Amino acid sequence: MKIALVQMNAIIGDFQNNIDSIKKHTHQAYTQGAQLVIFPELCVCGYPPKDLALYPSFQKENDHALQVLSETLPPDIAVLVGSITSSIHGLQNTMSCIFQGKIYFQQSKTLLPSYDVFNEPRIFTPAQTFHSFTLGKTKIIVAICEDVWRDTEIPGNRYTKNPLEELTKLSANVLIAASASPFYVNKPKLRENIIKKIALKYHIPVIFVNTTGAHDSLIFDGYSFAVNAQGEIVTRLPGFKEYCAYTEIPSRKKKLLVLHQNKYADICDALCMGINDFVHKNNCSRVHFGLSGGIDSAVVAVLAQKALGAKNVHAVLMPSIYSSDTSIQDAQKLVASLCIRSSYIPIHTHFTAFLSSFNLSLHAQGITVENIQARIRGILLMAIANQESSLLLNTGNKSELAVGYCTLYGDMTGALSVIGDLFKTEVYELAAYLNTKEPYIPQSILDKTPSAELRPHQKDQDTLPAYDVLDSILAHHLIQKQCAKQIIKKGFPPQTVSKVLHLVKKSEFKRFQSAPILKISPLTFGDGRDMPIAGKGIPI
Amino acid sequence: MKIALVQMNAIIGDFQNNIDSIKKHTHQAYTQGAQLVIFPELCVCGYPPKDLALYPSFQKENDHALQVLSETLPPDIAVLVGSITSSIHGLQNTMSCIFQGKIYFQQSKTLLPSYDVFNEPRIFTPAQTFHSFTLGKTKIIVAICEDVWRDTEIPGNRYTKNPLEELTKLSANVLIAASASPFYVNKPKLRENIIKKIALKYHIPVIFVNTTGAHDSLIFDGYSFAVNAQGEIVTRLPGFKEYCAYTEIPSRKKKLLVLHQNKYADICDALCMGINDFVHKNNCSRVHFGLSGGIDSAVVAVLAQKALGAKNVHAVLMPSIYSSDTSIQDAQKLVASLCIRSSYIPIHTHFTAFLSSFNLSLHAQGITVENIQARIRGILLMAIANQESSLLLNTGNKSELAVGYCTLYGDMTGALSVIGDLFKTEVYELAAYLNTKEPYIPQSILDKTPSAELRPHQKDQDTLPAYDVLDSILAHHLIQKQCAKQIIKKGFPPQTVSKVLHLVKKSEFKRFQSAPILKISPLTFGDGRDMPIAGKGIPI
Repeated sequence: MKIALVQMNAIIGDFQNNIDSIKKHTHQAYTQGAQLVIFPELCVCGYPPKDLALYPSFQKENDHALQVLSETLPPDIAVLVGSITSSIHGLQNTMSCIFQGKIYFQQSKTLLPSYDVFNEPRIFTPAQTFHSFTLGKTKIIVAICEDVWRDTEIPGNRYTKNPLEELTKLSANVLIAASASPFYVNKPKLRENIIKKIALKYHIPVIFVNTTGAHDSLIFDGYSFAVNAQGEIVTRLPGFKEYCAYTEIPSRKKKLLVLHQNKYADICDALCMGINDFVHKNNCSRVHFGLSGGIDSAVVAVLAQKALGAKNVHAVLMPSIYSSDTSIQDAQKLVASLCIRSSYIPIHTHFTAFLSSFNLSLHAQGITVENIQARIRGILLMAIANQESSLLLNTGNKSELAVGYCTLYGDMTGALSVIGDLFKTEVYELAAYLNTKEPYIPQSILDKTPSAELRPHQKDQDTLPAYDVLDSILAHHLIQKQCAKQIIKKGFPPQTVSKVLHLVKKSEFKRFQSAPILKISPLTFGDGRDMPIAGKGIPI
Repeated sequence: MKIALVQMNAIIGDFQNNIDSIKKHTHQAYTQGAQLVIFPELCVCGYPPKDLALYPSFQKENDHALQVLSETLPPDIAVLVGSITSSIHGLQNTMSCIFQGKIYFQQSKTLLPSYDVFNEPRIFTPAQTFHSFTLGKTKIIVAICEDVWRDTEIPGNRYTKNPLEELTKLSANVLIAASASPFYVNKPKLRENIIKKIALKYHIPVIFVNTTGAHDSLIFDGYSFAVNAQGEIVTRLPGFKEYCAYTEIPSRKKKLLVLHQNKYADICDALCMGINDFVHKNNCSRVHFGLSGGIDSAVVAVLAQKALGAKNVHAVLMPSIYSSDTSIQDAQKLVASLCIRSSYIPIHTHFTAFLSSFNLSLHAQGITVENIQARIRGILLMAIANQESSLLLNTGNKSELAVGYCTLYGDMTGALSVIGDLFKTEVYELAAYLNTKEPYIPQSILDKTPSAELRPHQKDQDTLPAYDVLDSILAHHLIQKQCAKQIIKKGFPPQTVSKVLHLVKKSEFKRFQSAPILKISPLTFGDGRDMPIAGKGIPI
């Protein structure tokens, strides 16, 4: 039996687009002689539908779309699609097999994740029953995303049910795992290892179909694959693009696409897809951002140009009296090498207007005047967004966002944070990786000492520990959930650790108002970290 | 048996504060001859602990606090407190009875809400077992918050278990319901009705103890009470303040405090508590805000003065060329009547600096120049926050936030949105209520036609439908979750409905970056409405 794996890029709530895409892929698979086409989880309505799913009108459109598909898809090819369905217990997250003009089979999702960025119990109720379906001589069972993650050590995994135990009792020939599994670094490898273990444990071939495309913070990488009952990968689809590939019931190993060996190759592809989909799924085409001559905005410039093409990217240089000549020159060099449009708007007159409101001299120092500069830039960038219907990209990194070394409504402005899930040390590594492809970023940007350039001779390290130390402490605290005492035991200076953890707590209010951040790590600010503002934080 | 009901105001993560408070109230109850003291849900760690609870160090402090309490509370009074506990299945939300120097009894929460602002499955695992405990001749069972909401028609309520069925099988003499139940209008009455039904259904007296105080968006009103087995309220505590009252096992009705008859009396108390607790639990004391001469900032001014006292409140007048003389005069009158500090910072020079960056004349019109004005004010207000360590209050209302009639990083700045959960029509009604107490708000502010004053002769109704129409459409769409077709059926003009719903969808990106909003309705922007930004919205 020839099976098509379609890692489709759906649009949330755009039922017509999703129906059209399902039809197009099905027709193509049909002409290729496939008997079964597998689409990802919730491809009919898009994932995650969030509270849209609570609207009866959204549910109705979803039901109508499923109806339209069952009436219009070719009757003699089986098509497995994901949608919302209604049961007496509530909404369910369901895969339906459309065959011979009707809904031939349905299986709902059992395990509803509520950790990290997931909040599925808010919307769905779990499956109560387990079924198989048969095509020709092939008996098929279906699991949905989290259903295959039951035995992993993901934090927050506390399931009592095990849908795979129930499903595999049905003695099927193949398990289909339909997913909308968001990307983070090494997730593609992790998924393959999980599925290999399942294939071996239950002696069953598994076909894993993941969605592609990005929605707000979440990037879905695809990287679908099939494993045989011996746990060997026999087919692997590429990452970060909508794609269709064919397999038989997995048995013999074929020549395989190799997974990215470099962490930053995946990150680069993920962030480009994240930018591209956010811009286009918001019906925009152009972006702009402040280009300072520092590493962060340089990396965002390269990513934006890769994602959208040079003609859709606009860099805005906004020097102040504290901007160094080399920063301006470096920014201009980068603009030239990327062939992107740029604007040059000095902020001096704006700055003096604000200073005079507070009777401050031009050489006044302190947090007030530093923030004023950052916020003037925020106003200028938002004015360009208004004037040109362009989307403002935020260029902040995870280290500064973690400790609040950033200005709310200043450099924190933007519709989307591109590198807000990369620590500063990772931003450097990503820059180096990007430069191995094409050396867009001037060496002087890679070499210079990091500075916000908001006062004379300012350096980030006047205020913060060295970034390698800072980023290690942050990783221990944010990802490993360690307290000061545990981190100090690893050999970090007690005062530094206390200071960093204090800054993390103190800046919760800033992150509360942050733009959505493209997720590329297991712990991303935003939905992935839900913290109180008022009150005390983690004991220091 | 004399029982103390303590509706305590805990601080999230401030274990020492919470231990001290529990001890203080217990000692007082002990000297009053009480045999049992009941505290609210999670009073040891504060509610909601959110992702703090996922940190092992936070769990350890919580366990330590429970240990300290069991060792230091007087041994011959039973004290029921709420804390996190660890089980083999994961963390649980538990009430522990401390008696005779040890933990005498524990009951965990069964129903974990995941609708509206709640996301408890993220943190907790449900109770598996049900117990009672006995003091003297009294057999007691304990339910925790959502456990008593099983049979209500709250949207998202899809529980299969019923802890009350299990608990009441234990044939107890009294049911204690310990809660951290956040306020919205009419919630106190709703809770009483739910508990009355439970008392009647299971023929058992019920003592309901709710927490007080605010944390970020959530305001906990208290309004604890006791009902006898006939479903009559026999004791009622006041709303919006930490309080201790005594009851016997509820039987005879006593003279009762009357629940607020006026919706705005509760809202006023709720918002004042919300401001006060946000400010103090963030270790601040002072607030400031932009005062325009319009109704919204006038209402916030009065609430801030009531909450914090005149000396801690600072109104900032920032007129532009489009500000009317009457607006400025009205703002000054209000400042005088409230006896609060004010600053006067015209934004003209700042405005011309920005205009010249874009080669715009002083009389240029359009969204760009309107937003620039709002954002200059944002910078000035944030500069004051930096200079004076004062907290900026946001003065936007729910109607404008819903349709995006507000400027991101402009009038949307602030650490806390005070009236962001009141529709414009409700803001007027609240103003009228406040003026019945003391006529602080000049009549001319109540009477004037609403205007953002960002261009000549601008009126809100140039852009938006009349507020009574707008607010009705919004209530149908946001709270009743109706689509355009359903709202049009109610008699609203089709074009108006389409336009409003389109604006709601188009401004999701703004609300994503909004300050936390004090919750006083069943559907508050923020955690209460989790919507995608990219993609299509509700079918229009």
